Amino acid sequence: MVTDPGAHPPPAPHPPPAPACSFASDNTAGVCPEVLEALVAANTGPAMAYGDDPWTEAATRAVRELLDAPVEVLCCWGGTGANIVGLASVLQPWQAVITVEDAHVVVDETGGPVRFSGSPILTVPAVDGKLTPDALERFASWAGVEHRPQPRVVTVSQATEEGTVYTAAELGALAERCHAQGLVLHVDGARLANAVVATGSPLTELIRDTGVDVMTFGMTKNGAMFGEAVVFCDPTLATHARYVRKQAGQLVSKSRYVGAQIAALLTDDLWLRNARVANDAAALLAREVADIDAVGLVRPPQVNMVFATVPWERLDALLEWSFFWPWDPQRHVVRWMTSFQTTSEDVRTFAAGLRRLLADR
Amino acid sequence: MVTDPGAHPPPAPHPPPAPACSFASDNTAGVCPEVLEALVAANTGPAMAYGDDPWTEAATRAVRELLDAPVEVLCCWGGTGANIVGLASVLQPWQAVITVEDAHVVVDETGGPVRFSGSPILTVPAVDGKLTPDALERFASWAGVEHRPQPRVVTVSQATEEGTVYTAAELGALAERCHAQGLVLHVDGARLANAVVATGSPLTELIRDTGVDVMTFGMTKNGAMFGEAVVFCDPTLATHARYVRKQAGQLVSKSRYVGAQIAALLTDDLWLRNARVANDAAALLAREVADIDAVGLVRPPQVNMVFATVPWERLDALLEWSFFWPWDPQRHVVRWMTSFQTTSEDVRTFAAGLRRLLADR
Amino acid sequence: MVTDPGAHPPPAPHPPPAPACSFASDNTAGVCPEVLEALVAANTGPAMAYGDDPWTEAATRAVRELLDAPVEVLCCWGGTGANIVGLASVLQPWQAVITVEDAHVVVDETGGPVRFSGSPILTVPAVDGKLTPDALERFASWAGVEHRPQPRVVTVSQATEEGTVYTAAELGALAERCHAQGLVLHVDGARLANAVVATGSPLTELIRDTGVDVMTFGMTKNGAMFGEAVVFCDPTLATHARYVRKQAGQLVSKSRYVGAQIAALLTDDLWLRNARVANDAAALLAREVADIDAVGLVRPPQVNMVFATVPWERLDALLEWSFFWPWDPQRHVVRWMTSFQTTSEDVRTFAAGLRRLLADR
Amino acid sequence: MVTDPGAHPPPAPHPPPAPACSFASDNTAGVCPEVLEALVAANTGPAMAYGDDPWTEAATRAVRELLDAPVEVLCCWGGTGANIVGLASVLQPWQAVITVEDAHVVVDETGGPVRFSGSPILTVPAVDGKLTPDALERFASWAGVEHRPQPRVVTVSQATEEGTVYTAAELGALAERCHAQGLVLHVDGARLANAVVATGSPLTELIRDTGVDVMTFGMTKNGAMFGEAVVFCDPTLATHARYVRKQAGQLVSKSRYVGAQIAALLTDDLWLRNARVANDAAALLAREVADIDAVGLVRPPQVNMVFATVPWERLDALLEWSFFWPWDPQRHVVRWMTSFQTTSEDVRTFAAGLRRLLADR
Repeated sequence: MVTDPGAHPPPAPHPPPAPACSFASDNTAGVCPEVLEALVAANTGPAMAYGDDPWTEAATRAVRELLDAPVEVLCCWGGTGANIVGLASVLQPWQAVITVEDAHVVVDETGGPVRFSGSPILTVPAVDGKLTPDALERFASWAGVEHRPQPRVVTVSQATEEGTVYTAAELGALAERCHAQGLVLHVDGARLANAVVATGSPLTELIRDTGVDVMTFGMTKNGAMFGEAVVFCDPTLATHARYVRKQAGQLVSKSRYVGAQIAALLTDDLWLRNARVANDAAALLAREVADIDAVGLVRPPQVNMVFATVPWERLDALLEWSFFWPWDPQRHVVRWMTSFQTTSEDVRTFAAGLRRLLADR
Repeated sequence: MVTDPGAHPPPAPHPPPAPACSFASDNTAGVCPEVLEALVAANTGPAMAYGDDPWTEAATRAVRELLDAPVEVLCCWGGTGANIVGLASVLQPWQAVITVEDAHVVVDETGGPVRFSGSPILTVPAVDGKLTPDALERFASWAGVEHRPQPRVVTVSQATEEGTVYTAAELGALAERCHAQGLVLHVDGARLANAVVATGSPLTELIRDTGVDVMTFGMTKNGAMFGEAVVFCDPTLATHARYVRKQAGQLVSKSRYVGAQIAALLTDDLWLRNARVANDAAALLAREVADIDAVGLVRPPQVNMVFATVPWERLDALLEWSFFWPWDPQRHVVRWMTSFQTTSEDVRTFAAGLRRLLADR
Repeated sequence: MVTDPGAHPPPAPHPPPAPACSFASDNTAGVCPEVLEALVAANTGPAMAYGDDPWTEAATRAVRELLDAPVEVLCCWGGTGANIVGLASVLQPWQAVITVEDAHVVVDETGGPVRFSGSPILTVPAVDGKLTPDALERFASWAGVEHRPQPRVVTVSQATEEGTVYTAAELGALAERCHAQGLVLHVDGARLANAVVATGSPLTELIRDTGVDVMTFGMTKNGAMFGEAVVFCDPTLATHARYVRKQAGQLVSKSRYVGAQIAALLTDDLWLRNARVANDAAALLAREVADIDAVGLVRPPQVNMVFATVPWERLDALLEWSFFWPWDPQRHVVRWMTSFQTTSEDVRTFAAGLRRLLADR
Repeated sequence: MVTDPGAHPPPAPHPPPAPACSFASDNTAGVCPEVLEALVAANTGPAMAYGDDPWTEAATRAVRELLDAPVEVLCCWGGTGANIVGLASVLQPWQAVITVEDAHVVVDETGGPVRFSGSPILTVPAVDGKLTPDALERFASWAGVEHRPQPRVVTVSQATEEGTVYTAAELGALAERCHAQGLVLHVDGARLANAVVATGSPLTELIRDTGVDVMTFGMTKNGAMFGEAVVFCDPTLATHARYVRKQAGQLVSKSRYVGAQIAALLTDDLWLRNARVANDAAALLAREVADIDAVGLVRPPQVNMVFATVPWERLDALLEWSFFWPWDPQRHVVRWMTSFQTTSEDVRTFAAGLRRLLADR
């Protein structure tokens, strides 16, 4: 957390009530009831370890049905690990990854994908948080030059770290450019559900038909206890993925418990219902704070993230009241996140508190 | 699985009843009831992610109390990952690991610790599955020679892959030799609970007082759903461990669920009770099969593993009836594992089935 | 080489005479006579391998005298290898390198430093080819955050890939900022001699007094056959460098032949005389082409590199006549390099040829 | 060096004359005259860097002629680097190397091949310094098991570190077994010339016809100043080798100087003549010391290495007189090496000195 180290005003003598949920991260939420039930239900009898069990098979089937394609599905423990598996499975160590400067794999995984794969990550500037096809032009001449890392994978986050989303048309254009340059398109879908809700495009349109090659299909931030799926839309890219998953420490021993959660989330569109709650809460929050003078929305929220400017000298008081993450100290931007657990009441309590704590300014 | 590809006798026309549990691995068991309850109970309200929550703190406290020492505790997802974190945290990439030839880190982690750390693993022959202090003599002259990988960590499994255990005296002698040669002693304690029960030595005696420096404290095989703890008995070795854990993809996002499980297992000695059930079941199995002529025990079981020779031409029929893992095709050795879930009835059913399927030989 | 794949005008029927030397790279030059003599003279009697010989000791002494400081000197084979050794010696695998986007370590070493060290390279935009202290501000808040690669080394090229040089004041300001943020400053001095001549600052002022921590002291492009020196201005950073050099395949077996070359180049300022010839040749070339309408100088040359725009449709004819490297197809920029071997006559012949081949345009 | 730290007898008051050459290593020799002449001759005019020059092409042609096969040849700087390039070019990071316990890549390269490739090295016991086909049986069942590193390359040294050689029949049997198990056979030929002389088998028989897939063709120990060739007998294995060479820091900038040396050594069988001188000198030394009671030959020398036991309490006096390397302190074994420069007079002087210094015992 980076805050102004200068003079802090004393906390309000009678702070407003804090919301029951946290706006710090969608990871602060617990597990959604249906998922917890599925975990309890899976706790019956013996099951072979390492994915050779009916729950893992059911989860694979569910993902294939959702994408209506014979994709390869590998369950993993967590998000950074799933990105490592997805990327390292399609990379040789003389090949490079391309992404935007503030990508999660660059700034939020302690260099894990680089350390594990040995491959450099080359960055390009983002436009509205997104990587544009034209940014790849710079690397077109690198192929075959023995002095240069060989570009191989473009990775983007859907939704992005900035809370924006790629439309199906944008992803399609990016995939097309990737393939034209001999590149593979990887999507970090830690918040894929939120992006599907935001775009209104089902996975078949947003992922399969656009030409995405590999993706992390995020579950944890969508209501699971743990577990992410690496999906190889092009199964020929998964030839060695099982070895990579194991050596990356991402092969789940009692895999049935990941399988059960994925299957539960994909049943009756629970994953989309959860995401819709989160997205709607962010939209509501944006509306609720719109008329607070001291708050400036960076952009209308597209998914479950609200970025806003706040008076930086009040930041500590705000964080003490109900913690969230400062995002950009230079521009005085903070990030508020919602989740499948965020209620309208939580949002209204949070907005009311912001209003009061920023009122006398 | 490696079996004789030759002629297979037809399966018995009326196979005996199979046990309700599996003897293939302690990973085939589910989650013990107290742990599941703890998971459900932890599913309440928001909690900060990545370990900054009360459950993770409680787990850390519980481990410290158990060892009666200010150890550093890092929760991780799984066993291979925990080994990677424990080893890579204390290794520089010009340093080497020493272990026995059939160590889990050598033959059962797809080279993960090597790939991640960049450090070679040097192997020595095992005696009864164990690494002896004298085996380290060979490396004494390597220190400071710029042409040689610099020995840094000795890693052993407690219990070993062969089902044997190091006594406190043996671990102490090994640690003493390690420290005399400037080496760190790491213990892969995926089955540490079983070893504590087998030796009768509490962790303070078996780990703290012997001088073990780092260890994986295994939970999954002892009744957890997922989660292992990396314990730095010497906290000065953990200076950079948090970075390593994150980049290894082993930082648990909703860490409360690991913390809750660890705390539950360490409450009222549940971890030892679970291990005792498993160890006792293995001992019972050894007794039950002792008079089957076709079965030869490799050694009396010390923990929850029974190694035995069986007629290899009957192997497929046995596996089809109730699957377990062939261990050494050359010597016709198989491995039968028990868990906290294995009942005496399971053992007797299994032994009776073996007896019948091997009877007419 | 990237050229317009379209219609090519036929080569001039009577091409102008080509220069005796090549303007493609300073690596196309051979070995300067004094260095060759030193190699021949070193070929006498036995000498211990791997640096334990009088020639290597003499080279170390010569570098220490030049810097007037007790620096650590490690001879290596080549430039990429020397960068790998210098960087990896001061990096832990959870730490990161910072440099400019078009740095040699990013675009011209096939990702070698990343693959070997496991550390990501984070890039910032360059100003006139140079990294500015303010560009480091972005990373100030990363230290201690377990999710972020930990910034550790800033690496810059002196002279830069764009042919610019850092003044002593600029390097000093950069080093000061680095140290204030807990960072180490590494200089890739493949063309350090050219920068010393260009700035007029001796190494004591340009490197020692500015606070540079580690550098590659380039020899090959300055007239050697092979061999570069990694210099640790802060010898405490070299604690493990010998292990890193060996495992990076950069420990020279018959090291006397590198030592002899370094000692020869540092005798009677041969290294500076060689660099001055090269720099002067570039300056002369810039003057000679100044009045060719079709040629546009990107900037006045500071070292031995001239960047200029040329009519792209004539590029193939030029390259066929006397090969050099296209630099930026988008902006129609080419690079002409001079070396210690380039004579005034070579420059005039080259300029005359350019003039004629671009005349009738 | 490891010697008895106990009581040292004083040096002989009048030590015998020391030989003009060193018996410590074949790396202590300088450069043979023909090679030096070739280096001087190559120092003419400009030449494109990085191997695109006539000398490098001539060297490639010479190697192809010698093997009478369209092999791929990549010049590198040194032996460790060449091994890294040869191995890493044919390895994926989830694959493993198999070799003998005391292999150069295990004990004498500071773990470089492991650090660079990320691949573990699995070791088997040697028989007379050599890897036997049956030792590979252990790994036959590992293929396709996702928990196990996937065996990919078997690497052996020819001649071995113990001074023994593989006959063509032995290499052929090993290659056959490798290929049957889907493995690639790599030969570290740092002393390949000595092995060719020892076996009497030309390279076509010893390497091409046996089925070796990749090798380091050593030049340095055979009279070169620097430079080794990585030879891909199966060129389809070299698809990505150029990227690996560059990123490993083994792409020689002024490559003409390596090319010139290789071409010189392969002209008129100079490489074999050099090796014969070295081998003959070792054979002579063995004969000369045969009747010194205090000296025990470990085995008759096959190449340019003599291993012998000496009274360990005299070791320091011997080393002070004419340095060589202790080999095995436990067994009191030392190693004496000869080179293309060792004369019969050197051998006789050395043997006479040993005789005198060990006489009064």
